[in-house]
Amino acid sequence: MLKANQDYLKLPGSYLFSTVARKQREFQEKNPDRSVIRLSIGDVTQPIAPVIIDALHRAVDEMASAESFHGYAPDLGYEFLRKAVSENDYKARGCDVEPDEVFISDGAKGDCGNIQEIFDKDCRVAVCDPVYPVYVDTNVMAGRTGTYDEKSGVWSDVIYMPCLKENNFAPQLPKEKPDLIYLCFPNNPTGATVTKQQLQEWVDYANRNKAIIIYDAAYEAYISEDDVPHSIYECEGARNCAIEIHSFSKNAGFTGLRLGYTVIPKELEADGVKLHGLWARRHGTKYNGAPYIIQRAGEAVYSPAGRKQLKAQVAYYMKNAAYIREGLAQAGYKVSGGVNAPYIWLETPDNMSSWDFFDLLLEKAGVVGTPGSGFGPSGEHYFRLTAFGSYENTVAAIKRIKEM
Amino acid sequence: MLKANQDYLKLPGSYLFSTVARKQREFQEKNPDRSVIRLSIGDVTQPIAPVIIDALHRAVDEMASAESFHGYAPDLGYEFLRKAVSENDYKARGCDVEPDEVFISDGAKGDCGNIQEIFDKDCRVAVCDPVYPVYVDTNVMAGRTGTYDEKSGVWSDVIYMPCLKENNFAPQLPKEKPDLIYLCFPNNPTGATVTKQQLQEWVDYANRNKAIIIYDAAYEAYISEDDVPHSIYECEGARNCAIEIHSFSKNAGFTGLRLGYTVIPKELEADGVKLHGLWARRHGTKYNGAPYIIQRAGEAVYSPAGRKQLKAQVAYYMKNAAYIREGLAQAGYKVSGGVNAPYIWLETPDNMSSWDFFDLLLEKAGVVGTPGSGFGPSGEHYFRLTAFGSYENTVAAIKRIKEM
Repeated sequence: MLKANQDYLKLPGSYLFSTVARKQREFQEKNPDRSVIRLSIGDVTQPIAPVIIDALHRAVDEMASAESFHGYAPDLGYEFLRKAVSENDYKARGCDVEPDEVFISDGAKGDCGNIQEIFDKDCRVAVCDPVYPVYVDTNVMAGRTGTYDEKSGVWSDVIYMPCLKENNFAPQLPKEKPDLIYLCFPNNPTGATVTKQQLQEWVDYANRNKAIIIYDAAYEAYISEDDVPHSIYECEGARNCAIEIHSFSKNAGFTGLRLGYTVIPKELEADGVKLHGLWARRHGTKYNGAPYIIQRAGEAVYSPAGRKQLKAQVAYYMKNAAYIREGLAQAGYKVSGGVNAPYIWLETPDNMSSWDFFDLLLEKAGVVGTPGSGFGPSGEHYFRLTAFGSYENTVAAIKRIKEM
Repeated sequence: MLKANQDYLKLPGSYLFSTVARKQREFQEKNPDRSVIRLSIGDVTQPIAPVIIDALHRAVDEMASAESFHGYAPDLGYEFLRKAVSENDYKARGCDVEPDEVFISDGAKGDCGNIQEIFDKDCRVAVCDPVYPVYVDTNVMAGRTGTYDEKSGVWSDVIYMPCLKENNFAPQLPKEKPDLIYLCFPNNPTGATVTKQQLQEWVDYANRNKAIIIYDAAYEAYISEDDVPHSIYECEGARNCAIEIHSFSKNAGFTGLRLGYTVIPKELEADGVKLHGLWARRHGTKYNGAPYIIQRAGEAVYSPAGRKQLKAQVAYYMKNAAYIREGLAQAGYKVSGGVNAPYIWLETPDNMSSWDFFDLLLEKAGVVGTPGSGFGPSGEHYFRLTAFGSYENTVAAIKRIKEM
C-alpha cells in the first residue's frame, strides 16, 4: 500500500533553524521599523577570500571552452583536492590519511545526515546533549531512535551523553553501550573542546566496545589552544574506529559555495564489512560529485595566500567571540565557549526556558540567538550566540543586551 | 550490535558507469597507443554557454564583498530560480506549478535517489525495464526490492515493466499493483517517448490505483515531435499522483555544475500524508541548498540569450544523434531512439550479449558504449550510444564501427 515514511512523521516540529528563521520573519513583519541582529545561525558574513575568488573565476573560464570544460566530476572528488586535503589537513599534522580515503562532498551537513545510512537500522546511537540537531533528526528519519517524549524532549532509543557545566560541557563515557557515537569538537553549540588525552579515551573506548565514532570536525579552524586535537586521527587507534567529517563553511566561508569531505580509513569495519566501499557505493549511486569550480575553490583554501587570508578571517570572528564572551560576562551572564570555537554558550537568567529567553531577547533587544533546548534536553535553560556576524553588529548586539 | 546496512550488501557489483569507466581505463593502460572514443556515459562535451558563463562570473564577484555575499541558500532554493522554473517550464506550457512547489537541488541524480526515502519501506516499486539504474539501486539500498536472482538480473519484489521492440519500447500498464511507478520520458536508455495520450493513461492508472508516479523529465529539452509531453503536469489529474524531477545537465550542460529540481504539488498525498512537507523536511535536515553562483547560472538558462544559445547546443547534439542513427542503420544495425532523445538504442548483432558487444566494440573499434543489460534484464542484447560527444568524434566512431 502507498504510505509515507512513518519515521518522518515522528519528527517533532520543524528543523530548529527553520523555526528560528520563521520567528524572526514574523517579528520583522510585525515590527518593520525595528532593527534585528542575527547571532543565531552559524552562517558566516565575511566575503570569500580574494585568492578563492580568483580560483573561482579561473575555473569558470575553463568551463567556457570545450578543451578545458569539465563535465561529471569523479564521484569521490577530484584528485587535486583529495591530495590537498590529505597533505594539509592530515599528513602535515602527522596523521596518516591517504587521498583515496577522502570523500569530497557538497558539505558537512549532508555527510553528517547521510553517514548513518551505511549502518544497520538496529545500531544504537549515542549523542552529546546538547548537540547539532542533524545527528538525531536523521536517525529519527531512519527509524533508529524509538519513541519521543514531548515533555522531556528525549528519544527512547538514543543514548544521551549530557554535557554539563560541572564537566566543562565535555561528555562522559556512556553507561549503555552504543554502536555509533557522534562527537563534535570544538562543539556546536557549547563551544567546548576536549584535550587530546580525553579524545584518546574515547578512541580507546570505541575500540574496546566495537563502536564507531562519527567525528564532526567542522570547527577545527577555530582551535586556539595547544592541547586540543585538530583531528581524531591524532589519536592512536582512531583509524580502526573513527570516521571524520569536515566542512569548508567555517574555516573558509563556504556556506553558500557548499564543500566538505568525509574520511573513512580503508581498514575501518562494521562487523567485518569495510565501510570505505559502502560509502563509495553511496556516493556513486546517490550523488554526482561537487561542482568542479567549487572544488578548485577548495584547493585554493590550501594555497599559501589562501591560508594567510583565511587565518585573518578566523581571527576576525574570534575577535567577535571574545567581545561577546566578555561583554556578556560583564553584564552578569554565565558564559562559556568562544575560545576554541565561534560559539558562546550562556545560561539563561533566572532559570528562564530557552525559548522564553529567545522571545525576550528578540522583543527587548532585537537580537536573534538560538535556544539551547533546540540542541537537546540538556540544552534547556541555555542559549547560543555565534561570532559569525560583522564586528559592528556584534558590538551593537552586545550593547543592546547590556541595556536590556 | 555494530553492523553495516545489510541492504547495501545485496547490490550486485558496482554502479554500471563505474564498471564501464574501469573497463575503459584498463583497456587504455594495456593499449596506450590506441585512441578510444567514449559514447557511453551521458556526459556532455560542449562548453557552458556564454550567457551562463557571464552569470557565473557576476555571481562570483558578488561573493567577493560583504554587501553582496551570499551564505547559506534557502533550503528549498532561491526565489528567483524557483520563479523562473515555475514560469518557464510550467506556466508557459499551461501547467499549474507554483514557485513554492519547486525544490531546487544539486541535480536530478540525487533527487531520483533520495525521493524514495519519503515513502514507506513496504511500498511496491515499478520500473521500466531497461532503465537508469539509480531507481532500482537506491530502492535496493533501502531494502525495498527483495532478493536478487543473479542469472536473470531480476529483484523478487520489483515490478518490471518491459519496454520491448514490439511496443516501440514503451512500457505497458503493469499487472501487479505498484505503489511507486518510475517513468522516464524521453527514456534513458532507449530514447523512446510516449504521446500525451499515452501518458494520460498512466496518470489515470495511478489515480485509480492510488499510486505515485515519479516522473524523470531529464531529457525533456530533446523532444522534437509535437505530440510528446514536456511535463507530466500537461496531463489532467497529474497534480494528484505525480512528482516530477528535472535536470539542468542535459539541456544546459550542467553535469559539472550540478543543478536540478523536483516538483511536488501541495495537494499530493500518500495515505493522507502530504508529501510536499516531507520532502521539505528532508531538504531542511539533510541538505543545505545548491550554491548561490550555480543557482544564478540556472537563472541565466531561462534568459532570452540563454534559450537561444542552449537551443543551438541541443541542436548540435541532435545532429550527432541523427548521424549515429543513420550511420548504424546503413551498417545494418537495428536502431531506435535519437529523435526525441540524445540516446541511440541498438540491437547487438547475432544476439550477442550486451557485455560481449561492449568488449568487441572497445577491442575492434576503440569505441566505448553502455551495455543494455546494465539497465535491466530486458536490456540484454541491446546497447546504448549517446550523442553527447563532439561531432568529429561521433563521425570518427561511426566510421570505425562501420569498418569493424
